[in-house]
Amino acid sequence: MGLHACSSTTSTTQSPSQTAPVTQTAPALSVPALPTDPFIEDLLAKMSVEEKVGQMTQLTIDVILKGNETTVVDAAKLRDVLVNHHIGSLLNVRNHAYTIDQWHQILTQIQNVATKETRHKIPVIYGIDAIHGANYLAGSTLFPHNIGMAATRNPALVNQSARITAIETRASGIPWNFDPVLDLGRQPLWPRFEETYGEDMFMAKTMGTAAITGYEKNGQGQDFTVASCMKHYLGYSLPASGKDRTPAYIPEQMLRELFLPPFKAAVEAGASTVMINSAEINGVPVHASKYYLTDILRNELGFQGVAVSDWEDVIRLHTRHRVASTPKEAVRMAVEAGLDMSMVPYDYSFYDHLIALVKEGTISEERINLSVRRILALKKKLGLFENAFPKPELKNRIQTAEFDKVAYQSSLESITLLKNEKQTLPLAKNSKILVVGPTANNLGALHSSWSYTWQGSDESQYPKKTQTVLQALIGKMGKANVISRAAADFNAPANYDVAQLKRDAAQAKAIVLCLGEKAYAESPGVIDDLTLDANQLALARAAKETGKPVILVLLEGRPRVISAIEPLADAVLMGYRPSTFGGAAIADVLVGDHNPEGVLPFTYPRHAGDVLLYDHKNSEEIREDVPNTYGNVGFNPQWQFGHGLSYTTFQFSDLRVNKTTFGATDELQITVKVKNTGSRAGSKAVDLFSRDHFASITPSAKRLRGFSKVNLQPGQEREVSFTLTAKDLAFVNQQGQWVTEPGAFDLMVGDQKTTITYQ
Amino acid sequence: MGLHACSSTTSTTQSPSQTAPVTQTAPALSVPALPTDPFIEDLLAKMSVEEKVGQMTQLTIDVILKGNETTVVDAAKLRDVLVNHHIGSLLNVRNHAYTIDQWHQILTQIQNVATKETRHKIPVIYGIDAIHGANYLAGSTLFPHNIGMAATRNPALVNQSARITAIETRASGIPWNFDPVLDLGRQPLWPRFEETYGEDMFMAKTMGTAAITGYEKNGQGQDFTVASCMKHYLGYSLPASGKDRTPAYIPEQMLRELFLPPFKAAVEAGASTVMINSAEINGVPVHASKYYLTDILRNELGFQGVAVSDWEDVIRLHTRHRVASTPKEAVRMAVEAGLDMSMVPYDYSFYDHLIALVKEGTISEERINLSVRRILALKKKLGLFENAFPKPELKNRIQTAEFDKVAYQSSLESITLLKNEKQTLPLAKNSKILVVGPTANNLGALHSSWSYTWQGSDESQYPKKTQTVLQALIGKMGKANVISRAAADFNAPANYDVAQLKRDAAQAKAIVLCLGEKAYAESPGVIDDLTLDANQLALARAAKETGKPVILVLLEGRPRVISAIEPLADAVLMGYRPSTFGGAAIADVLVGDHNPEGVLPFTYPRHAGDVLLYDHKNSEEIREDVPNTYGNVGFNPQWQFGHGLSYTTFQFSDLRVNKTTFGATDELQITVKVKNTGSRAGSKAVDLFSRDHFASITPSAKRLRGFSKVNLQPGQEREVSFTLTAKDLAFVNQQGQWVTEPGAFDLMVGDQKTTITYQ
Repeated sequence: MGLHACSSTTSTTQSPSQTAPVTQTAPALSVPALPTDPFIEDLLAKMSVEEKVGQMTQLTIDVILKGNETTVVDAAKLRDVLVNHHIGSLLNVRNHAYTIDQWHQILTQIQNVATKETRHKIPVIYGIDAIHGANYLAGSTLFPHNIGMAATRNPALVNQSARITAIETRASGIPWNFDPVLDLGRQPLWPRFEETYGEDMFMAKTMGTAAITGYEKNGQGQDFTVASCMKHYLGYSLPASGKDRTPAYIPEQMLRELFLPPFKAAVEAGASTVMINSAEINGVPVHASKYYLTDILRNELGFQGVAVSDWEDVIRLHTRHRVASTPKEAVRMAVEAGLDMSMVPYDYSFYDHLIALVKEGTISEERINLSVRRILALKKKLGLFENAFPKPELKNRIQTAEFDKVAYQSSLESITLLKNEKQTLPLAKNSKILVVGPTANNLGALHSSWSYTWQGSDESQYPKKTQTVLQALIGKMGKANVISRAAADFNAPANYDVAQLKRDAAQAKAIVLCLGEKAYAESPGVIDDLTLDANQLALARAAKETGKPVILVLLEGRPRVISAIEPLADAVLMGYRPSTFGGAAIADVLVGDHNPEGVLPFTYPRHAGDVLLYDHKNSEEIREDVPNTYGNVGFNPQWQFGHGLSYTTFQFSDLRVNKTTFGATDELQITVKVKNTGSRAGSKAVDLFSRDHFASITPSAKRLRGFSKVNLQPGQEREVSFTLTAKDLAFVNQQGQWVTEPGAFDLMVGDQKTTITYQ
Repeated sequence: MGLHACSSTTSTTQSPSQTAPVTQTAPALSVPALPTDPFIEDLLAKMSVEEKVGQMTQLTIDVILKGNETTVVDAAKLRDVLVNHHIGSLLNVRNHAYTIDQWHQILTQIQNVATKETRHKIPVIYGIDAIHGANYLAGSTLFPHNIGMAATRNPALVNQSARITAIETRASGIPWNFDPVLDLGRQPLWPRFEETYGEDMFMAKTMGTAAITGYEKNGQGQDFTVASCMKHYLGYSLPASGKDRTPAYIPEQMLRELFLPPFKAAVEAGASTVMINSAEINGVPVHASKYYLTDILRNELGFQGVAVSDWEDVIRLHTRHRVASTPKEAVRMAVEAGLDMSMVPYDYSFYDHLIALVKEGTISEERINLSVRRILALKKKLGLFENAFPKPELKNRIQTAEFDKVAYQSSLESITLLKNEKQTLPLAKNSKILVVGPTANNLGALHSSWSYTWQGSDESQYPKKTQTVLQALIGKMGKANVISRAAADFNAPANYDVAQLKRDAAQAKAIVLCLGEKAYAESPGVIDDLTLDANQLALARAAKETGKPVILVLLEGRPRVISAIEPLADAVLMGYRPSTFGGAAIADVLVGDHNPEGVLPFTYPRHAGDVLLYDHKNSEEIREDVPNTYGNVGFNPQWQFGHGLSYTTFQFSDLRVNKTTFGATDELQITVKVKNTGSRAGSKAVDLFSRDHFASITPSAKRLRGFSKVNLQPGQEREVSFTLTAKDLAFVNQQGQWVTEPGAFDLMVGDQKTTITYQ
């Protein structure tokens, strides 16, 4: 691994908006115009209202499938959808990953009708959730979920994984991927935490744009790219209750400073589409908000692509959010707010109501033209008007050894060593171990959401090459060296009776205890306590009682509180959701075939009621003046953001900046030396933080401003450099403006600190 | 107890502000002027800058006490404070409740110097935290903390307790009480939850104004009233982390709809002073915010009284919040924002810096005149210019039997029966019980914060008449019938070894298990997990193992999660912090001498990671369409807001409204019949809720709009009535305006529901 520094030179630029009115009423619809395209204007002029509204309607594949079949298209249904209802977009699978041949067959049937039997022969745009790889393409290799990708601190891997996903998706005949997630993982209860790049804005911005570039601009041409989809715009990830798709309360200042920048950067990186947050911000469902969907998204960010709803979310303005008194009113609200396409997805309710609204004059034809123009432009950009069909010659471009290599490397770089007392790790390959715990022999826990099925829990659909941790350890250490009765049973009080556990442990040198979470996606993954369940804690206590060293391996999508058992573990390895080669990567790290290099992209809380993130405010730090009755001591997480150990040791020195005072136009060159002071080669993630001494919005304890990674041989030293400008140290002030205020800033890398002054 | 309905007819009126700018820059200082008072203007004209700034400075009593003495004033120090530094206000005690004689002696010394030795003879205004009674007056009876007072659903008791507190405080010579707390208890981790009237805005508004009226307008004249202090303005109670005095993130809409109305109502009720939130809202420390302290407080709410800082909070703009780059800048910010008086409280930093700021012209003398005018007007209104001295004839007006009666009644009405299976309660007086648990014989747990000391944990200072639960039970049932080894030990794995517990239980008919929280106040009460500590849960399990019925008594300031042990209890009694007669009241309820009538003023959560309040949004309810992997089922608290059982049963019927459609000027008369269908007399709290079917801000599942209580003999039926207008159903829209939107509303009482339409 070479040297690849990421800093934020171009990203935290001044917002075009000077003020952020809370009054969320938008002016009359006026958005940046798309360049006029004669082909599209021609088509538009010929289209009926029904045909236009059909383009704005997206249905799920279930509506064209025969009975309960998973892949058999019903020709009559298909004609009804495309010819009679002019539907412009379809999505999804029916609870099954399809083979490449099935995809080709289905998409060929669809485009046959769309491009031959409809009046204007407009191709269908098919969309899919290919979230951590081409997860609905049978046999595809899956990459670690974003939370693990962020632990690699390696945007190149994020970019490569997106490229591969684009290639496999496009090879299936699908040109549109509902990815990446740009939401911030700042609410650890939230069941989609694993889909985020962690808690930091700069990380999400950097990794998110790396993914978008990989999807949309991989340099191999249209046959190997897909339209990406920024999601979920905006503020989805901070539900107050932790439950999925529930209200967030985010003040405007925080929304602009933390949640908006990844979307702004994504628009600048060329994201073609955006998916809307299913939930509410401050009592306003985003699907009904002209402020978010037009004022900010279009007028401030300048986004010209397609805005699609999330699943069933338009009708939910009536049924769940209760801002629309009728289903028709829900459609009016969403379209007037700025939605281009509704993921309905089962019926014609959106279609029928929108036609009526246009015909009665409530919504202007000019308004729907705006959306249809964007949708047709997207189809044109993706080459669908030239050839909408899956290309047989692409079938053999999927599932290559090269792809597997990138996935394996991603898993390896993500695995994070959190604790390693008395050099418990690495294990000698010829030593005997006991492997226990519900995630030890569980593919679901390795992959979780969006893995061949939505929930990832149907293990029959996983490719044969996928190994569990247990299988990988057996492969690595030999069957004779691995004792295990591990069953993927999260409900048993313990997987072993304690007596059996003790008997088994007596023969082993150490216990590999695999805990964490089963597979889940979205709402089904809602929990009611951040603390790991009592059954698993009991198993850890039983393991400790054997007297053997306990190596805790965590496979989980969010930081489940384990402070009650952490002291019982001699070593702790965080696997996140490392996917296809996750079992192998964990085994490699356990035995030392790979020197761990992952670092946490989130703050691991010590207690369920004590969740503070790395960028908390100074007033959330310990108060020396007031002793606490209960011994609470301010910011004291289990493990810090950026924490991650290695089998070697590193030393930082000589943090320098080219200027100690700087102005608006100056470039700051920041360098720091990193030395491998141990006895084996290893890679070290280098996070650059800043701290504003004083500011008109209370400054954070620290903020990530750049990151990098350096690979070093024993004894080797290298210099890592970052470039920053005043804009990179900016924040959103009380007026909603991005500003850098004069004054002192600390810059920090590891244990190094230097102070600079902006004037 | 008669019939006393509270509805919100006059309170949720239209806000004068038409829009709520996020841009928190205020225009140039322009606030409603106080009526000109020649006496004060005369005085002002004669005062030096130093004398004016002295009036704006408040110091703690420590600065005038000798060495480590608690009550001995050092004459030289006192002269330095009052004569040399012109200090206008003092506060607090030195870790000790003072006797009435000590108060008289101290205050006489102070006013002797102030009114005789200073140039203008301006009396000192002394302030005190008399939070649930005259807690710093030795021997005074204490009322239940507000959380229990709200459980009574009886504003008359709140009013009476405030009157009594005013009488005892004023009798001590103190004319200013830093009470009531108008913050909403919506973050159960927060250690000041017990000081709130619970989670509901209407409850806080109603009870808060009842308290203010009791303090300021009790009809007995100046000798029996005190200036009240609305606190803590604004948004203090919702720290994101749950820790005290840490940042809250509250969108403007929520701030105006939930947090501001109690303060608006308090201003209208005549509150003389306000204390400022020590923390930050949306990154802006309230002490530095012109938007909150001037634009809203002065210009919108029309408040003309004195705004005092909380403890040490001005300098903390520099040291903790880091919005001020120097201590002097902190003073400038706070004064420019609109602060009148700084509770410094140990030094002359505020005084010195403010003098310098005025002398150098940074802050105008006109600006400080505004504050000094308010402070002098307050002193005049309180009669201090006529006679600032404690009046000996008031000494015998304190600690009367009548006061005790009100306190006892308050405790009785607050105790809330949460569960009572198989008529476990009431206990027969002649049966034998075993009393266990750390709160059984613990005065601190009964009283908590602000009880003779700040932390309430020095039990040597409690009056002799105060009984623990154990003592009260012995008094009630006889020593022979009460077995106990209960020690106030929260740290022991259990108070008993299990074998001993079983031996003791064998002789008893039931176990009274007293759990909860020790005494704490403010930051020392910060916790890191809402779940009750493992030691207490273990004791509950041990109690259950005896096979005897377990009656769980909770003494706690906030709802600690007990779902793991709730099924083990046959009955559960919530005591909150019932104070002086709390032990007696609990014993009365346990043996049936009082039929319980308290109801929860908050939602009792079932799980630490599943905190939803009664007024949650509809989209936080269960989603039938998505099964949860973990079995979570939406809104499913341990006990609902308003829950509370009785030893009799009640039935609601015949909920009626005089109009099914109504307009802006209509009065709605709502009636409901309540019948005692059981066999003993009892009181029933009657909560009136509304639900807006659809609204432009997503409506809550329900909102409290009125409450009442009715006492009924067996078989008796009475009608309870409420009056509402359209304004009482209003909410704050996206533009920050209070509006009632046309459409349907449900009105709900108990199991009764009716629908009305606003047009």
